[in-house]
Amino acid sequence: MKIAVLGAGMVGRTIAEDLSATFEITSFDKSRESLAILAQRVPSVKTQQYNLAETGGYNALLKPFDIVVTAVPGFMGFNILRQVIEAGKNVVDISFSPEDTLQLDALAKEKNITAIVDCGVAPGMSNLVLGRYNEEMVVHNFECYVGGLPKIRKKPFEYKAPFSPVDVIEEYTRPARLMENGCIVTKPALTEIELMEFEGVGTLEAFNTDGLRSILYTMPHIPNMKEKTLRYPGHCELIIALQRSGFFNENTILHKGFDISPLEFTSAVLFNEWKLQPGEEELTVMKIVVEGKKESVKQTIEYTLLDHYDTGTQTTSMARSTGYTCAAAVHLIAEKLFNETGVFPPEKIGRRQHCFNYMIQYLNERNVIWEKRELV
Amino acid sequence: MKIAVLGAGMVGRTIAEDLSATFEITSFDKSRESLAILAQRVPSVKTQQYNLAETGGYNALLKPFDIVVTAVPGFMGFNILRQVIEAGKNVVDISFSPEDTLQLDALAKEKNITAIVDCGVAPGMSNLVLGRYNEEMVVHNFECYVGGLPKIRKKPFEYKAPFSPVDVIEEYTRPARLMENGCIVTKPALTEIELMEFEGVGTLEAFNTDGLRSILYTMPHIPNMKEKTLRYPGHCELIIALQRSGFFNENTILHKGFDISPLEFTSAVLFNEWKLQPGEEELTVMKIVVEGKKESVKQTIEYTLLDHYDTGTQTTSMARSTGYTCAAAVHLIAEKLFNETGVFPPEKIGRRQHCFNYMIQYLNERNVIWEKRELV
Repeated sequence: MKIAVLGAGMVGRTIAEDLSATFEITSFDKSRESLAILAQRVPSVKTQQYNLAETGGYNALLKPFDIVVTAVPGFMGFNILRQVIEAGKNVVDISFSPEDTLQLDALAKEKNITAIVDCGVAPGMSNLVLGRYNEEMVVHNFECYVGGLPKIRKKPFEYKAPFSPVDVIEEYTRPARLMENGCIVTKPALTEIELMEFEGVGTLEAFNTDGLRSILYTMPHIPNMKEKTLRYPGHCELIIALQRSGFFNENTILHKGFDISPLEFTSAVLFNEWKLQPGEEELTVMKIVVEGKKESVKQTIEYTLLDHYDTGTQTTSMARSTGYTCAAAVHLIAEKLFNETGVFPPEKIGRRQHCFNYMIQYLNERNVIWEKRELV
Repeated sequence: MKIAVLGAGMVGRTIAEDLSATFEITSFDKSRESLAILAQRVPSVKTQQYNLAETGGYNALLKPFDIVVTAVPGFMGFNILRQVIEAGKNVVDISFSPEDTLQLDALAKEKNITAIVDCGVAPGMSNLVLGRYNEEMVVHNFECYVGGLPKIRKKPFEYKAPFSPVDVIEEYTRPARLMENGCIVTKPALTEIELMEFEGVGTLEAFNTDGLRSILYTMPHIPNMKEKTLRYPGHCELIIALQRSGFFNENTILHKGFDISPLEFTSAVLFNEWKLQPGEEELTVMKIVVEGKKESVKQTIEYTLLDHYDTGTQTTSMARSTGYTCAAAVHLIAEKLFNETGVFPPEKIGRRQHCFNYMIQYLNERNVIWEKRELV
């Protein structure tokens, strides 16, 4: 079976490498450097330099392939996903685009293909778990806590960005949508800071960010849902200080004759400070809580993940936890374990017990261990 | 007696107004706006628009005057002071220039004039007190704690700058020189943070800044001397965070095709955040400690100041505590209470009991109350 992986960044490369054990992979990217890194690591993966923004060529480009993976920057994700569906290809997407990918459901049905979207760790695994237990009980509360953190904590921020600082700051400034008592409410990001203990990590702080995405609309019957981002304690206070004193303002100020956006300049200053250095170890910490009632009995399910950088293969935890989840979904399609047509966020996949079990098992085999606790 | 006041900024205006009760005052400034504010407040003060950087014209400009006050930005202070001395005029200076004004001592003696320099609150009153008690005992320790603070504390910085943010940041980045066990030692600014209680204000944090200036060289026999800056607690941690993450770097970074200095851009962002608004109340808090032995008996002298914005006359505490000290020194010269020739920092004035008493009394009459405590 032939699979095209669009994007050979940190996560795209990990997906290509993982899938190459089973399938015939071709990776596409504009960056020759990224492709060269991949080709050196996994000689069996074919690489082709291609400007992925040029979606007009997709029909021809993707013709030989059975399944497509899209692992591109969020801002170009929606358009690329649409063109892949237009080309009539099954697809798994982890691009985290700002647009609502469910809008492409009708097109996917028309083209008779399966599109699994938002299929990383968060969004991704959080949706999958909720989708599963929504079948098992009447859920009244869903919580997701997630963070990517450097192993070595360096003041002042104790943070490294696995992607561009401007995208991190975007998470810190975009209002967070939550479900409270059956209503979608909007709160500023960085609010409702609370300290939480995580085994193997210690105390972290959790605060509101806009991470619920599709489940706000696919799970409207659940009255309380929230997602919070995790950082080492103290990070949030500094970010709020920068925000309150104008460093995140988008409106330009005239400085020495140039119009400069404080937000963009702040991102440039933080770029070096927050840059994950090659070989720098990081970790992914995540807790998913689903509370509800099963036959009138209260039930609480917790899934937790603590995943580390793999020093052996020099694979970041970010790429492992996101990429292997995506790769598992590719297998679901390839092995016809999931073959409905349309656009499916992972909560729709998790509904199927066999799909859920397959993905948890797939991750487990790659040492991405989701621990389940059941509190009755 | 005719007095020229060079500089009609916040402090220069206050000096002119105060001296106008006794003397014939002419104020000079490049800014017509600053002069207009002064002229409106004190019609008896003459104002003349003049670019004070054009020191070539000083001989003619200053000819009619008996005493000159220089209250100009620090970066132009030294050159202006030199030209005033060249013009053969007695002068009191509060410009806080980075250069060592004692270098002008020989010139002042040659011209047969008195120059009192660094004659504000700090430097200024701290030097005066040390100079006085250095005559009374064998001093082995001198400490000065000083801060200008807004009355209303607003997060995150709880600070307003009475001058340009770039000059405040300069204080935070310039290494601090201290005297320890008889040696001049250099420590980074913002170090040795300690919490201190101040009556009427509460807990403040004190940290090293480079404020000793002349007394490092005029009082080399005192083995321990330090000056620390006071802020509301938490300020320092934020400043250190900005510094550590590169926001105070002077080296430019290429941003959207422009070479931008993070330090200058950070100053521009903080300008609004730190700007003292018209009528915004602030205060000056200061503690001076002189420890020594008098006839083998341990003695500790403390002078403390807590001065507030004057709502009646809309005069900032910064201008009151600095400007009235300067004005008192003008009176010392005018009334021939101090008539030695040369350049004198205030520790040389404080040596004279009658000069010290005069200045404390002068400030007292203007409700700038220095409280003395003696711990034997």
